[in-house]
Amino acid sequence: MIDPARYPRLSRIQTPDELRTFDESELGAVADELRAYLIESVGRSGGHFAAGLGVIELTVALHYLYQTPHDQLVWDVGHQTYPHKILTGRRDEIHSVKQKDGVAPFPKREESAYDTFGVGHSSTSISAALGMAMARQREGDDRRIVAVIGDGAMTAGMAFEALMHAGGMEPEPNLLVILNDNNMSISEAVGGLTKVLGRATGSRTLNALREGGKKILGDKKNNPARFVKRWEEHWKGMFVPSTMFEEMGFHYTGPIDGHDMPALLSTLKTLRTLKGPKLLHVLTTKGKGYEPAEDDQIGYHAVGPFDPVKGLVAKGGAKKPTYTDVFGDWLCDAAAAEPRLHGITPAMREGSGLVRFSREYPERYSDVAIAEQHAVTLAAGMATQGAKPVVAIYSTFLQRAYDQLVHDVAIQGLDVLFAIDRAGVVGPDGATHAGNLDLSYLRCVPNMLVMAPSNEAECRQMLSTGLQHPGPAAVRYPRGSGTGMAAGTDLSTLPIGKAEVRVQGTRVALLAFGSTVPAAEEVGRALGLTVVNMRFIKPLDRTLVLELAARHDALVTIEDNVVAGGAGSGVAELLSAEDVLKPFLHLGLPDAFQHHASREDLLSEAGIDAAGIRAAVLKRWPKLLPGDTALSATG
Amino acid sequence: MIDPARYPRLSRIQTPDELRTFDESELGAVADELRAYLIESVGRSGGHFAAGLGVIELTVALHYLYQTPHDQLVWDVGHQTYPHKILTGRRDEIHSVKQKDGVAPFPKREESAYDTFGVGHSSTSISAALGMAMARQREGDDRRIVAVIGDGAMTAGMAFEALMHAGGMEPEPNLLVILNDNNMSISEAVGGLTKVLGRATGSRTLNALREGGKKILGDKKNNPARFVKRWEEHWKGMFVPSTMFEEMGFHYTGPIDGHDMPALLSTLKTLRTLKGPKLLHVLTTKGKGYEPAEDDQIGYHAVGPFDPVKGLVAKGGAKKPTYTDVFGDWLCDAAAAEPRLHGITPAMREGSGLVRFSREYPERYSDVAIAEQHAVTLAAGMATQGAKPVVAIYSTFLQRAYDQLVHDVAIQGLDVLFAIDRAGVVGPDGATHAGNLDLSYLRCVPNMLVMAPSNEAECRQMLSTGLQHPGPAAVRYPRGSGTGMAAGTDLSTLPIGKAEVRVQGTRVALLAFGSTVPAAEEVGRALGLTVVNMRFIKPLDRTLVLELAARHDALVTIEDNVVAGGAGSGVAELLSAEDVLKPFLHLGLPDAFQHHASREDLLSEAGIDAAGIRAAVLKRWPKLLPGDTALSATG
Repeated sequence: MIDPARYPRLSRIQTPDELRTFDESELGAVADELRAYLIESVGRSGGHFAAGLGVIELTVALHYLYQTPHDQLVWDVGHQTYPHKILTGRRDEIHSVKQKDGVAPFPKREESAYDTFGVGHSSTSISAALGMAMARQREGDDRRIVAVIGDGAMTAGMAFEALMHAGGMEPEPNLLVILNDNNMSISEAVGGLTKVLGRATGSRTLNALREGGKKILGDKKNNPARFVKRWEEHWKGMFVPSTMFEEMGFHYTGPIDGHDMPALLSTLKTLRTLKGPKLLHVLTTKGKGYEPAEDDQIGYHAVGPFDPVKGLVAKGGAKKPTYTDVFGDWLCDAAAAEPRLHGITPAMREGSGLVRFSREYPERYSDVAIAEQHAVTLAAGMATQGAKPVVAIYSTFLQRAYDQLVHDVAIQGLDVLFAIDRAGVVGPDGATHAGNLDLSYLRCVPNMLVMAPSNEAECRQMLSTGLQHPGPAAVRYPRGSGTGMAAGTDLSTLPIGKAEVRVQGTRVALLAFGSTVPAAEEVGRALGLTVVNMRFIKPLDRTLVLELAARHDALVTIEDNVVAGGAGSGVAELLSAEDVLKPFLHLGLPDAFQHHASREDLLSEAGIDAAGIRAAVLKRWPKLLPGDTALSATG
Repeated sequence: MIDPARYPRLSRIQTPDELRTFDESELGAVADELRAYLIESVGRSGGHFAAGLGVIELTVALHYLYQTPHDQLVWDVGHQTYPHKILTGRRDEIHSVKQKDGVAPFPKREESAYDTFGVGHSSTSISAALGMAMARQREGDDRRIVAVIGDGAMTAGMAFEALMHAGGMEPEPNLLVILNDNNMSISEAVGGLTKVLGRATGSRTLNALREGGKKILGDKKNNPARFVKRWEEHWKGMFVPSTMFEEMGFHYTGPIDGHDMPALLSTLKTLRTLKGPKLLHVLTTKGKGYEPAEDDQIGYHAVGPFDPVKGLVAKGGAKKPTYTDVFGDWLCDAAAAEPRLHGITPAMREGSGLVRFSREYPERYSDVAIAEQHAVTLAAGMATQGAKPVVAIYSTFLQRAYDQLVHDVAIQGLDVLFAIDRAGVVGPDGATHAGNLDLSYLRCVPNMLVMAPSNEAECRQMLSTGLQHPGPAAVRYPRGSGTGMAAGTDLSTLPIGKAEVRVQGTRVALLAFGSTVPAAEEVGRALGLTVVNMRFIKPLDRTLVLELAARHDALVTIEDNVVAGGAGSGVAELLSAEDVLKPFLHLGLPDAFQHHASREDLLSEAGIDAAGIRAAVLKRWPKLLPGDTALSATG
């Protein structure tokens, strides 16, 4: 529970109703308490951190001035919502964030009426808020709708689509977009928009000049030459970025200091009264108020538990490298051997393991901002010229470039390698970040080579295999570390479409894909079953599958993808095409969105850890129970 | 063959090499011949028409001044490429466009070295061209890369992503983007970008003023008041749209008249010499030079064969309504009964059958421009407020909003109806417009209701069912007309997850999905087999499937989706989950991109027309051959 002695104001705030009983003059102090409380609670729990610290004042001001939840706030992306959650009924549970049955790390409609729209992927808020505004306006309901979007999220095409639509509409939608400009997405911000916003950020004097623009225009009769010169020098700065948004049809205000509570309040009060689409440009500092986070905004983007006084402490001892690390090392090694290799990330340099590559091969590295669609078609364009692009992307974010993968890469059979991280069960970030669908949505695409490694060494081999393969290829690997097997340093490849028999057993063959292989192997060894590391989802090892079917009484497929259309369905399709009839058990993820919990919990719930596989096999074929074990066939 | 008497110049041009032997002064005449030839040949063959007429001069000028195919042109979207194809080796085959084994309707890399990038979906050209430029520049190869993109295509987010990346890069990419501004995409142009470009288009004087801007700034000492006033009046116009592109880091030129050959040539000559990212804004008229097409740009977007003198003639007699018509009528009727319904299209008002709806319910109609991602999340936002949005979209374009469907609609279980046109086999537009994947990529998504109608009346019922269903739902229907069954006028619904037994037969049950039902029924009746119209891909009619399995010796599923992960795999997954072992034949589209041909040809090739289904069934189970028929079991 919150300590009223340390948090005299925040302890009295359960919801914005209580917040709104405070006098405006106290809101700065409320913000200070909220910041301290956030540092304390995330220090205990871990979670997304720096983004929330940057919007403390904005969160307080918005809930104070807008009648939430009647008025509606859409937070994009959800990283920034911890302060919002604390002020809207979840103060005492915020330490449970990301844990099973705890507070969700992103806004979640089921969790609270204040969470108006679930935003785990970025750049959706303007579209959603516009939809809300249009629906309400058509009913004559004049409640206010506000989208808060970071400068990183603003680089995505869909934010632009939404701005263009909102700015061009008749009748005008009543919509306030707050651009939270911290000059930082998760990676370093890049691209043209950063240039545009950077000019404004770097020159507050220009803003003052702009504010005074009319005055200057009015009384400059006496010294036109100087005025014209200054005008020439500054017009770009003066109209940037205002012009861009105003051209799109938005009323632009800003930039203002997002940590200056009185400025925020007075500006928002004015904007509340204006009709039509409005954009407020707010400058904030990610990690604001917690020095270690201000200094290392990327390191503090999302953290495990830490000591607020000592900050993040480097973990002691040798840690198993993650699949992300394996990819990052492979990319550098492969680049050394293959001068045509080019690495591309949509704003996930750290998350995708590209830090070292970006330093060692800056001229062969492209961070294209949060722009998954562009990332993939850019790669396709490069491939037409003989380059060998590698797109490093999370499974869930590849969904945003699905058409580009199909239309630009696969139809043309272009030589692009997709290194798909966070595939399968992801865990604490919840349903929005799960990689449960990729085998289904990739397997149906003609021309694709699709692989999933069972350990780190194989991941490396598959990446090399995909790079060598003269067409579209994907390697999808899970979050975190694997078996701990050393990945090696060579660039050897695997024969395409060949699986690996891990255990020669009898009766039942377990055909396991990717990260489920170790669990399957454990079960197979215990029960004396055959275990195969399938390696390739597409193309399947036809010969081996048919042999296995011939030599066994039953087949089991195991994968960390939904059953619907997954790798196991590919095996079933092969059997039916060959008119082979064989008892078949298909294990995989459920036909439901898995909510946030640990990876282990989710694998266990889905029944694809060793215990689950064993139970399912024994339930289907109870006679498999080995005589020499005391384990019962519950399942 | 081309008639040298009528086309004295064009008949001498096989490739741009010959074009470049002409004197500049003759290029206007070449353009006139090219225009006349295009009108003549498309009149004979049908095809995309108006867009090509708008870029005749531009095509001639580009191939004249750039050393294609060494220099590379990327046409976005491919509609505009017929003149390009005529000038690059395909003059005498252009009449075969869209036919099986004929010229492809879009640029196609396999077809010609001049077709540098396949663009069937819009807005990909800048990304692709940037990738090309980056790959070449890194090799020290200074060949020139040009993307030609329409104003409609420019509204898509990915074009913006690419502009932002290109404009913000170091070192600067050598890239020319030509904005072909005809104030028209396939539907009426909409949104903020149209506003922006419209200002420029409508005010060429402003452009003149802008060109003279520096001069004005230089010698205005004598009358500052007038200058300031004019500046105030015009700054928006002066810097629009140049400012927008220049802010992004592009060197902006224009707008210039895209039908003025000398202006085009001189401007392109200058631009050829400049480094860095450049944008040339060209104003053109869609359908230019063929009056009926200029007057009816939408009607002439893509045409069947027509008489160049008489123009398009309304087809005589009563035609079967298409599924698009059925949807359009249903939408109006449903809107009359359901005030919360809101119709959304990403720039496909005509193609998706929304013309009548847009007129009868303008306040409940949104054309969001080519912005599929925004369309879907906008709908999600509306649904959070209790509205009932209907997103009308082509199957292939829904790929571009896949993440939004998953993340914004399905995860949140929001009440959005997807009316998916052009699903399954599409035909003459080729692989880029095929709808072969949607059942696979939709079926794996939790929370989705997925339906496919077997006839027009059922399509209407399914749309009503999806609208009533309080969660995400999709109805996917094919291009063209169906059985001819009257769709009716009521708003009755179907029981969710219930299939319809069409024929009670023996031995084998044919489980057919959507448009394949009539063919299955024909085969089933001929062979005495059971035929089921499955109706629901998700959820399946579990009870009936298990009953069918119990009462028959074998099951066949038939669908116009790829086999990989399609509806039939859902049936197989159900059987294996229930431990039911039954001979199973899965018919559907191949694991390959089908190229352009008629719908009938493609269905036949895939073996899912009546002859193909019959042959496949008889091949698998030869004893099914009925004694009373002379047909042989070849397959």
